[in-house]
Amino acid sequence: MTLSTPLTGVVPPVCTPLTPDREVDVPSLLGLVDHLVDAGVDALFVLGSSSEAAYLTDGQRRLVVESVAAHVAGRLPVLAGAIDMTTPRVLDHVRAVTSAGADAVVVTAPFYTRTHPAEIARHFRLVAQGSPVPVIAYDIPVAVHTKLPADLVLALAADGTLAGLKDSSGDLAAFREVVTGARALPGFSVLTGSELLVDAALALGADGAVPGLANVDPHGYVRLVRLCRAGDWERARAEQERLCALFGLVGVGDPARMGGSSSALGAFKAALHLRGVIDCPATAEPQVPLSPEEVERIAEYLAAAGLR
Amino acid sequence: MTLSTPLTGVVPPVCTPLTPDREVDVPSLLGLVDHLVDAGVDALFVLGSSSEAAYLTDGQRRLVVESVAAHVAGRLPVLAGAIDMTTPRVLDHVRAVTSAGADAVVVTAPFYTRTHPAEIARHFRLVAQGSPVPVIAYDIPVAVHTKLPADLVLALAADGTLAGLKDSSGDLAAFREVVTGARALPGFSVLTGSELLVDAALALGADGAVPGLANVDPHGYVRLVRLCRAGDWERARAEQERLCALFGLVGVGDPARMGGSSSALGAFKAALHLRGVIDCPATAEPQVPLSPEEVERIAEYLAAAGLR
Amino acid sequence: MTLSTPLTGVVPPVCTPLTPDREVDVPSLLGLVDHLVDAGVDALFVLGSSSEAAYLTDGQRRLVVESVAAHVAGRLPVLAGAIDMTTPRVLDHVRAVTSAGADAVVVTAPFYTRTHPAEIARHFRLVAQGSPVPVIAYDIPVAVHTKLPADLVLALAADGTLAGLKDSSGDLAAFREVVTGARALPGFSVLTGSELLVDAALALGADGAVPGLANVDPHGYVRLVRLCRAGDWERARAEQERLCALFGLVGVGDPARMGGSSSALGAFKAALHLRGVIDCPATAEPQVPLSPEEVERIAEYLAAAGLR
Amino acid sequence: MTLSTPLTGVVPPVCTPLTPDREVDVPSLLGLVDHLVDAGVDALFVLGSSSEAAYLTDGQRRLVVESVAAHVAGRLPVLAGAIDMTTPRVLDHVRAVTSAGADAVVVTAPFYTRTHPAEIARHFRLVAQGSPVPVIAYDIPVAVHTKLPADLVLALAADGTLAGLKDSSGDLAAFREVVTGARALPGFSVLTGSELLVDAALALGADGAVPGLANVDPHGYVRLVRLCRAGDWERARAEQERLCALFGLVGVGDPARMGGSSSALGAFKAALHLRGVIDCPATAEPQVPLSPEEVERIAEYLAAAGLR
Repeated sequence: MTLSTPLTGVVPPVCTPLTPDREVDVPSLLGLVDHLVDAGVDALFVLGSSSEAAYLTDGQRRLVVESVAAHVAGRLPVLAGAIDMTTPRVLDHVRAVTSAGADAVVVTAPFYTRTHPAEIARHFRLVAQGSPVPVIAYDIPVAVHTKLPADLVLALAADGTLAGLKDSSGDLAAFREVVTGARALPGFSVLTGSELLVDAALALGADGAVPGLANVDPHGYVRLVRLCRAGDWERARAEQERLCALFGLVGVGDPARMGGSSSALGAFKAALHLRGVIDCPATAEPQVPLSPEEVERIAEYLAAAGLR
Repeated sequence: MTLSTPLTGVVPPVCTPLTPDREVDVPSLLGLVDHLVDAGVDALFVLGSSSEAAYLTDGQRRLVVESVAAHVAGRLPVLAGAIDMTTPRVLDHVRAVTSAGADAVVVTAPFYTRTHPAEIARHFRLVAQGSPVPVIAYDIPVAVHTKLPADLVLALAADGTLAGLKDSSGDLAAFREVVTGARALPGFSVLTGSELLVDAALALGADGAVPGLANVDPHGYVRLVRLCRAGDWERARAEQERLCALFGLVGVGDPARMGGSSSALGAFKAALHLRGVIDCPATAEPQVPLSPEEVERIAEYLAAAGLR
Repeated sequence: MTLSTPLTGVVPPVCTPLTPDREVDVPSLLGLVDHLVDAGVDALFVLGSSSEAAYLTDGQRRLVVESVAAHVAGRLPVLAGAIDMTTPRVLDHVRAVTSAGADAVVVTAPFYTRTHPAEIARHFRLVAQGSPVPVIAYDIPVAVHTKLPADLVLALAADGTLAGLKDSSGDLAAFREVVTGARALPGFSVLTGSELLVDAALALGADGAVPGLANVDPHGYVRLVRLCRAGDWERARAEQERLCALFGLVGVGDPARMGGSSSALGAFKAALHLRGVIDCPATAEPQVPLSPEEVERIAEYLAAAGLR
Repeated sequence: MTLSTPLTGVVPPVCTPLTPDREVDVPSLLGLVDHLVDAGVDALFVLGSSSEAAYLTDGQRRLVVESVAAHVAGRLPVLAGAIDMTTPRVLDHVRAVTSAGADAVVVTAPFYTRTHPAEIARHFRLVAQGSPVPVIAYDIPVAVHTKLPADLVLALAADGTLAGLKDSSGDLAAFREVVTGARALPGFSVLTGSELLVDAALALGADGAVPGLANVDPHGYVRLVRLCRAGDWERARAEQERLCALFGLVGVGDPARMGGSSSALGAFKAALHLRGVIDCPATAEPQVPLSPEEVERIAEYLAAAGLR
């Protein structure tokens, strides 16, 4: 299918359910996709950070894209992350995910290396030249330790290199600069990666949201985006605040025992397991599993949000 | 071959010469290996940061290890980086490089993700369990944004998970803690990744060095290590200071135009090209090439160090 | 006067005009205060970061507070920064600024030292115990290199230690957590320090804003806050976007020649000088002055925003 | 007295003993000075980071310098920190400490503000112009969040702005660049602030050391420097390793309960109290005190180092 221009609405970064021995659990993955599609989301983003792309082998990545693309069968666009350190390795992933059926690729700045903005621009230009599908920039400084400058994103949008931006930087002021600048570029899609500021992002003109928490409560985010589009900011704020409270579940993991990825991704999967969407809450190695007490607190968060 | 216990001496992180169209230039690579072996180095480390491992595709990585391992043919150990974001992906690289002939693997902490020390320990334990060859930890916070704590390294050394440490952290005090603690672990190899403090590292008890600059001047580092072992600290210091001055070449690239990787790796390759060791100074995408004026300054550094 | 409960609206962090020999230019300072008061601001904040508090001697700080407090004479509240490294030094400033007439003090987390959240809490509690006036926390990680955790702020609000928060962290999601949590604490004032997200901050429930750019265009921020309060989000967004465009003036200083403080504070003062509000655009040492060409660009920003 | 040219040897950053109600305990301070002078140190550095300068009020700072300068009475040089955010405030401290008897001042880069290297250079030049005594640069990025570039330090040394450098950056390679470059500047003193690498620093040519741990064991550091000067590197290393083991005491404070300053400064003071040098181990607010169990571990460190 062709990517709609621009991409808008709720685009969940789809979690990757695993079996207890850490293989991709395809039936659970497709069940999760149905859970999201049935809730009314606008597109799917596989192989992002919430998908544990950093932990999946190349074989597992390919299996995820193939399974989801075949299952969705063109009903809505499937974006796929091509997450790797530099241009040549990213291009290999672009080839893999597009031959597996992805409708667009999502690409970060280089990481591991020390990279200049001019090199970041060159990276995106080379990736776009080598990609048969649109390229969306993924701004995630917590992972790659570089912030994409707003003027660089806008320049790459203006020359057709980029079809959109997923902003997970947490810097709404810089995001605003892209949103405002992109008004002159109607095909360019500006998406927030925040779970917590979707109403604010849409109020200032964003096209949509890519919230990890939409795995757990897709209906909530679909409602929220509809309220924003209707200009019902008061009810949008209430829905957003309910989702903010729910998002507290990402902090249940004991920081003395695990890192932020283990806690947040473990929480999303535990919630999906508790809601009956996936069969097993396991996260990939070397992440540490949540304790039974921590999972119990996830259940409390779900109950408080009206999800159980 | 079996890895000597412990690994000592000069272990250059071998640059990866590329053709003008960015394919691995195998004849130049083997010429570089001969240049290093003839100078008397003790082992070779391929697919490290100085090798542009972050930029090489899986196919290129495999070609590098196969070519070097076959060429060396057991005359000295070949270590290979298995550089990727997390455990499952690193294990795929471990399988690839060991089947291609690597005698040991070099592995960093996870990156891209937010990782707790307990998860880093779990990562190294799982990698060691899955590796047919010894595992050497690679401490490179500038790339992975985590410092390996000394006590964690020593615990993993004591339980047999790790066979050694390559320390590129720049933190000689923390390195000293590992060196001192490892005296009780005679098979464990403690190597500095510094170009600038090899004399100091050996004076406090390190086993050897993995300096990127040894690509350019392997004879200098071999001499330096021999002087240190002989306890001739005065002449060692003079040799080290000559190499420190030469190392200034990594800064020739204009920081307004390129990042640190482009400048440093470009400088190593330009110097190797000027010395006639490799055919083409190209670096991988999206790195920016040095200008002719910058290359001229490389030539001046070589002349000042007595290398032309 | 007594601080209104809670403090709301536009609270400019008042610039400190200097003479060419870097003494406080009291007539210009009072002229600036009139410019702000006449525009309808709700309170004044002296000795903040935009006031160059970090550059003012104790004598200059005292002169600023005395001059402004005497001039304002209770017409609106005067908040004063008590910016220093740790509790004992901050308490000395609290005594100085309150005896000079400040109605509230604004205090950051400790800096220069490495401080634990429990120590930050202890710091604010000791400052509040020693202060005759309300204490407002100043969250400015770019300066103090610590982010005030939302739960810590809310705990200190709940126990009466803090009367408010000025958030200059740029992290609107964390700010939202404080805003939402503070609904149960009606006397607690939550203020954004952002120039760029005042509409978004007020939409999610903030009480007001402390934007440095309000020195240059106080009428704009007063209008913006009134539009937000009226629920006219569309016109509020337009006004905010005009101010965002104007805020571009903070970037005119050449980053190859000066730091961010020199550029931003120099730009505010150049704009005030161009608008005829202050006599001299000098900034304190060791800041670098803007060039004539850079000042010309400030004039263009003012013209584009309709301010000349 | 005149500062020797260059300053060499052991220069302890003198702790500031406090009474239980957090006033300067002058008798204990002078007792500590005697403890240091009797051990053979070469100069004293008051109002540094180990002196809790960041926590002392201006009155306390003045009392410290006056008391120590009068007590020492020219027997050895007294350096005093003039630690504050920017040039005008630092100049006030320079006037205060020199009128109180300091023989040299120690000054960091600006902090709290965002500062460019050109502004740092301007800062040191203005401070030196306003100082009646020599100025020593204090490179302490953990506190001020800027690293003094080696070329900047050497330029300021060459033009007479700086009389020396105290390097607490932990970056021995950058320190080496200053040491090597300063060989052509015989009056310039290059001092390491490290406790752990004094042998290494002297081996590469440093003039001396400013180790906080020298409060606790001045005899050890005096011995260490003498062994280095005698070229007895083997025994120097053994002495250094004994001191490295002792330095472990800075980590006794529970990181779940306190920050690094509380733990390290609390440990130094607890050790001085246990050794009978000072009357009370209290640290300044808002630091958290060590627990009795943690103090017991300090005693074990002292015993293991042969100090009880």
